[in-house]
Formats: sequence, C-alpha cells, structure tokens
Amino acid sequence: MAGGNDDARFRQRSDYPFFLSYRTRWSDNDQYSHINNSIYYHLFDSVVNTYLIEHCGLVPSASAQIGLVVSSQCQFFAPLSFPQVLDLGLRVTKLGKSSVTYEVGVFEEGKDAPAAVGGYTHVFVDQVSRKSVPIVTATRDGLERLFSGRSAPKL
Amino acid sequence: MAGGNDDARFRQRSDYPFFLSYRTRWSDNDQYSHINNSIYYHLFDSVVNTYLIEHCGLVPSASAQIGLVVSSQCQFFAPLSFPQVLDLGLRVTKLGKSSVTYEVGVFEEGKDAPAAVGGYTHVFVDQVSRKSVPIVTATRDGLERLFSGRSAPKL
Amino acid sequence: MAGGNDDARFRQRSDYPFFLSYRTRWSDNDQYSHINNSIYYHLFDSVVNTYLIEHCGLVPSASAQIGLVVSSQCQFFAPLSFPQVLDLGLRVTKLGKSSVTYEVGVFEEGKDAPAAVGGYTHVFVDQVSRKSVPIVTATRDGLERLFSGRSAPKL
Amino acid sequence: MAGGNDDARFRQRSDYPFFLSYRTRWSDNDQYSHINNSIYYHLFDSVVNTYLIEHCGLVPSASAQIGLVVSSQCQFFAPLSFPQVLDLGLRVTKLGKSSVTYEVGVFEEGKDAPAAVGGYTHVFVDQVSRKSVPIVTATRDGLERLFSGRSAPKL
Repeated sequence: MAGGNDDARFRQRSDYPFFLSYRTRWSDNDQYSHINNSIYYHLFDSVVNTYLIEHCGLVPSASAQIGLVVSSQCQFFAPLSFPQVLDLGLRVTKLGKSSVTYEVGVFEEGKDAPAAVGGYTHVFVDQVSRKSVPIVTATRDGLERLFSGRSAPKL
Repeated sequence: MAGGNDDARFRQRSDYPFFLSYRTRWSDNDQYSHINNSIYYHLFDSVVNTYLIEHCGLVPSASAQIGLVVSSQCQFFAPLSFPQVLDLGLRVTKLGKSSVTYEVGVFEEGKDAPAAVGGYTHVFVDQVSRKSVPIVTATRDGLERLFSGRSAPKL
Repeated sequence: MAGGNDDARFRQRSDYPFFLSYRTRWSDNDQYSHINNSIYYHLFDSVVNTYLIEHCGLVPSASAQIGLVVSSQCQFFAPLSFPQVLDLGLRVTKLGKSSVTYEVGVFEEGKDAPAAVGGYTHVFVDQVSRKSVPIVTATRDGLERLFSGRSAPKL
Repeated sequence: MAGGNDDARFRQRSDYPFFLSYRTRWSDNDQYSHINNSIYYHLFDSVVNTYLIEHCGLVPSASAQIGLVVSSQCQFFAPLSFPQVLDLGLRVTKLGKSSVTYEVGVFEEGKDAPAAVGGYTHVFVDQVSRKSVPIVTATRDGLERLFSGRSAPKL
C-alpha cells in the first residue's frame, strides 16, 4: 500500500476509486455495543464481490474461475455502531497473474477519517478443480481500474 | 393483519408506512445461492430497531425499557440473492399495553410483490429486571404511527 | 404438533429423537447480552441439514433434490447467552408428499425446560428447476424416523 | 510467533495449550460451498472470549475492563465445510502491559495440519471510558498460561 501499512489510519476517501454504502444491522453490534470485528470482513466480501459481479463479469454460480481468499487482515481505529450507515471504499493494491490484493476503507457516513482499513488477497481458481489460473481479461480489466496510483475509473 | 396471514403474499408496498433499503451481503447467500432464511430475521431486527431508535427515542444501551422478542415468523414466496438491494417495509399490526407486533414486507428493489413477509412480537421490559412494563408514551406514539389502518406517518 | 402450538413451552427432551450439541459464539449475543433471536434460525438450519446430510443421503452440492424453506417460526421462553452450550432436539411434526415440517427444541445444557421451540417447513425441489418434487425414498425413510408419535430411531 | 508468520501452515496441535471444539453451521458455508472467510473471525472471538470468561474472570457485562480488537489477520490453507466439526487451538504470542496477541489454529476434527491460522490483538480498556488500562492480575495470570514457549496450563 502507498505509504505502507503503518499509515492506514491516514487513508482518505480519495484513495478509493469505488464506493458502496451499507446499512449496519442490529446484530452487527456485539455485547459491547459496537460493530463486532468479524462483521468488517463480511463487508469486505460484499463490496469486493459486488464489484466483481457488476464490473468484472463474475457470475458466482457459473463463472469458470472464482476468487478464493488466502489471507485477510484489518486494523481498527474507531468504533462504529448500529444503526450507522457505512461507506466502503475499495481499491486494488497488488495485481498479479493469478491473484489480487484488495484494500477496503471503512468510513462512517459523513466522516473523512477511516474507522477501519483492511482487506484480503484473492487467488483465482478454476471453479471445478479449484487450482489457480491466470485472471481472465474481463476481470483483469475491471481490477486494473481499481489499481491505486491510477486515475479513478469511470464506473 | 388485514386480510389474514394467508394473504401475506398479496401485500403491497402501500401497506407499509415506513421503508428502509438494505444492501445484501455476500455471506447472506447460502450454498444454494440465495439469501438464507435466517437472514430475513436479521433484517427484521434491523428495520424495527432503526425505527425504535430514530423515531421512538430508544437508546439501546441506556433506555429504561427495551423490547425483547417473544415470537417470530416468516413466509417466503420468492428467492432473493446477493447483490440485490432490498426494500423493507414496516408496519405495526397489533399494539398492546406492553407488547407490539410488527410486520415486515421484504421487496426486491423495483418489484411490487413481496419476496417474503414476516415479523415478530416485542414485549417491552425493564432493562435491568427484564420484567414487562407498559410501553412509554414516546415509544407508543412512534408505534401508533405505524399501526395499519391509519394513514401513513410523516417520517 | 402434539398438544398444539400453545403448549410448546412444555416440551421435554424426550419429545425429540435426534440431538446435537452446539457451542454458542461470541457474536450470537446482541447488545442486550443474550443470544439474538435470529441466531436460533441459524441453529435450526444446522441441525436439520446435518440430519439430512448424515442420515438422509443429502449432498447439498450434488443431490437431485434439495429442501427450500417456505415458512418458519419460533417462540422464545427464556434468554440464553454465550458461552452457554445448547442442546438442539429435532423431530418431524408433519410429513407430506413433497414437504416436511420440523420442530426444534432448544435446551440449555443441563436444563429440562426448553428455552425456545421453533422450526420450519421444507419443500423439496429439483436442484436445477427449483420445482417441487416428491421426496425421494432415502430422505423419506430418514425423516420418518423423526416423525413424532413413533418410537425414537436408532441413530 | 515462534518461527515467524511464514511458517503458520506448519503449526501443530501441540503448539496450542487450550482447545475448544465447534460445530460448523449451515450458514457458515457461502455459495462456493465452503466456510466463508469471515466466519473464522467469529470463531476466534468465541474461543478467546470463552477462555477470558472461564479462565480469566471476565464478566462481559460487568468487568471493569474489557478487551477491544485493534487488529486481526488470518491465513487460509485448506477449505472447510459444514457440517465438519472444528478444533480451535488457542495460544498467546505476545503479552504486553495493556495488550495481548492471540493466535488461533483451526483444525478439522481428526486432522493434524491446520486449515487456517489467524488471530488478533486485544487492547484492554476501561469498560466505561474505553481508555487503555494495564491488564488486571487475574486476567494476566490466565493469559500467561497460554503464552507460547511455556508449558501447557492445567485447564
């Protein structure tokens, strides 16, 4: 990531070329009355796969290749709580032949500083054999539009 | 409910005075590739508690009284699937001294027929003793605005 | 159900021929510090599908027919809380040509009275067309062993 | 971690002094028919907090200090799938004045190699002010028994 992992708390909305807004759910709050740490990973999966489906041609039940998560991580800077609405910013920080690393910035609606920054690495595999395969062109084109350092894509 | 439970599949958007829109999440889909039945109850909880917090004065961590679910039910008419966006309509079908029954209509964005109709009954209890108490005026006023048969509230 | 729905709070462990034990999870508790109502439906799905897989020949990714939930309901009698361990009792209360209704009794480990009783109705459908089909013999045999009123199956 | 993060796939059951067994749930599987990556974090939270409650004196609703997650990560080596039963091994890899880092090894029942290895860092804070505080003695004693490099605790 630009600036290194240590700087994640200084991410800005403008670092992310793609955004989706998510309502939190009652059960996202755990008994300490804030969004449980696990929920952020559900949200990462949601913004990544929405992008793959809507902008990269992924059809989860039918595509020849699918992305499997091989590692994930998140840093938490400020608590969030239901019923807040969250803005999730998505970018690609690394794009290999068969794998891609996404970064997601989680922002409370109306706030400039991220509450959390995390993400994961997808390895693309054949849907049946589950062996790694080179990312197909349609997907790669979509992912390149989120590659940081480039100008924001027209979505 | 007006028309009885058997007619739930004929509910219309106009039956519900309060609506919120929810993005589905990747993990809402189970291995049959549609939204798992349990997820609807998470959504019921979310629209009900958002209404209670934003329109009835509920502060979950601090209010003297809170609503506990004593029974819930749902009928499923059509499958839904991530990344669809869902419109959740909320109304009150029964309002007692200490309890309230909510009905939620789940509509796919852009569709007129509900994909599912369900809900639950809250008994209001003292936050500490967890014994049932009469619903306080601020909450009752908010709930009455969702009581079916009445005109839609200005929200 | 034997004795009618009104009597669900008087269910006994002996009413259920099949049991599985589930650890609760930290995030099952909502901010009122007890197991959220939605979680019970996740548990219903888990005990039902474990039974279908292990005792009725279901292979979710490959079977010609699968069960889809058309309605579900639950009554809650006593709160439960992480890290309690729960015993889930399963029985069949109605067995039709294409559909089956399950009832699940949720017991805290070591307790005789149920904390909740609920369940749902599965309609079996063709995995591809998603149209209802008669339940295949292997599945029907397994379900009959859970049909209440009969003696408990040897599992 | 002993041996460094790169070696996580070579963890053995004997690396973990505390174990709990968890049934997977139907909805843990996503539409690719294996346990969704987010679910592992729910399990981490469950084994950590069970240990804190049962062996370190934590009472989530009442303790003066609670642990908040500031960062988490996981590496995934092999797919898991409902209805498998999972053994979760827990150890402490770093123990500071106010913070602790846990590592969790996720093993399929009967398997020696981990399917996933991950964990998170808790900072202990005052329950009300949410400011970091030194870990109290009872908690520290429990955590030290899980500190790797030491002999396994009698649990």
